[in-house]
Amino acid sequence: MIGARLVNGIDSAGIAPDDRGLHYGDGLFETMAAVDGRLRHFNLHMERLCDGCRRLQMPEPDLAVIEAECMRVLEGLDTAVVKLLLTRGPGPRGYRRPENPTPTRLVSSSARATEAGAATRALKLRLCDTRLGLNSRLAGVKHLNRLEQVLACAEWRDPEIDEGLMFSADGRLVCATAANVFLLSEGRLLTPDIRDCGVAGVMRRVVITEAPSLGLEVIVRDLALSDLNSAAEVFITNAVGGVRPVGEIIGAGRWPVGEVTQRLRARVAAVLV
Amino acid sequence: MIGARLVNGIDSAGIAPDDRGLHYGDGLFETMAAVDGRLRHFNLHMERLCDGCRRLQMPEPDLAVIEAECMRVLEGLDTAVVKLLLTRGPGPRGYRRPENPTPTRLVSSSARATEAGAATRALKLRLCDTRLGLNSRLAGVKHLNRLEQVLACAEWRDPEIDEGLMFSADGRLVCATAANVFLLSEGRLLTPDIRDCGVAGVMRRVVITEAPSLGLEVIVRDLALSDLNSAAEVFITNAVGGVRPVGEIIGAGRWPVGEVTQRLRARVAAVLV
Repeated sequence: MIGARLVNGIDSAGIAPDDRGLHYGDGLFETMAAVDGRLRHFNLHMERLCDGCRRLQMPEPDLAVIEAECMRVLEGLDTAVVKLLLTRGPGPRGYRRPENPTPTRLVSSSARATEAGAATRALKLRLCDTRLGLNSRLAGVKHLNRLEQVLACAEWRDPEIDEGLMFSADGRLVCATAANVFLLSEGRLLTPDIRDCGVAGVMRRVVITEAPSLGLEVIVRDLALSDLNSAAEVFITNAVGGVRPVGEIIGAGRWPVGEVTQRLRARVAAVLV
Repeated sequence: MIGARLVNGIDSAGIAPDDRGLHYGDGLFETMAAVDGRLRHFNLHMERLCDGCRRLQMPEPDLAVIEAECMRVLEGLDTAVVKLLLTRGPGPRGYRRPENPTPTRLVSSSARATEAGAATRALKLRLCDTRLGLNSRLAGVKHLNRLEQVLACAEWRDPEIDEGLMFSADGRLVCATAANVFLLSEGRLLTPDIRDCGVAGVMRRVVITEAPSLGLEVIVRDLALSDLNSAAEVFITNAVGGVRPVGEIIGAGRWPVGEVTQRLRARVAAVLV
């Protein structure tokens, strides 16, 4: 793997064994796409990160330092993924947070090959058994407590299956393990409400912002498995893959690569800021 | 702080920045009491750890290695706490677990002063607003996804308050942030069912095992805040503190240090294995 890694700006450093990110998942992360050496949607990622800091009552980081470190790990890379991890830093044993934390920044990059035909390849999804617990205090935040996603991903090994859809503890359709989900239904876009579980994806936000310019209304509401029956198109979104069409959800339906999905994919790919 | 720390047996080593414990909370921990240089309930802790490995589909560790490392960090200490952290180890970006993981062991110790009068001091508790999400796949497991406990502990700063009680997303009384809870009601011990949230505490298990020898029936069932009204005694349990009497829960009631709590405290303190 080609890439670089900085811990608090220092190359090849380790993480302190008493870091609260390790002990409690007490921190946040962002996964960003870089194209032609430029970070996509950096400001939106930082907005979500700072919102997460407020939600977890962590000090907000110096965004200029983060941007500089992201550019350092991108040196020599063209199309890449940059992952930022921000924890509450070291602390004594116990859940109680330190009064004056020294957060830990981990910035790493990995080169990414652009998949041939990615724009039109329809994904194959499955339905996961692992559910998402409800907690409005954590919902939307891209925090480091991700065992539910780890267990969901462990449910299948078939490399033909690209992603898995996850449901809330009370049975609502919420997201894929590492993406948000949208349905086109009666000419409108539907995407799950994430008030008590799920992540507020940056690409979800870009789609919600851009859809009206294509004449599309977006409705954020609770969705059920049965809503897939009436969907004309289905797609999933994340910062690295953008908008990706879903061709099949095993046991729930098949769809062609839709015209609306293709237009949205092109539209959001043109949004660089 | 007096203590020692080993990462995979190596003193003063750091944690690799790609450790899945850090990125996803993908791992387990145990907090053990050591008295006179001996670990209390080591076998029960290792039983829970191995159960957690099976639940998270992680390879089970070599328990002889763990025991030897615990004894190394205990050298020169008398009354101490030993914390073991076991993660799935390093891995590439993404939730999917590596096919052949190399788990990370972190064993650390800290000296512990024995609190004067600890046996009879009644604790003061509060009721936390932060709820516990429901997930039967993770319930009982002492895993590293602990943001709910971190947020709950951040709800108060008053040093007079010893602990906070937590409720499930659907309103049941479950536990304290770092302890299990028992009520004495109509001569029987009641403790919350932990089928969909909460931790299967080692001291909870010792109390459930030992109570019948004192003529006490233990009932594990769903409990509500209102069950505190009819409680004659309340106590909380964990591996480090044993059985500790609750004297007050702010807004929910006051209790004297009860005779049953004191008998149970003495009883479990005598169980060394």
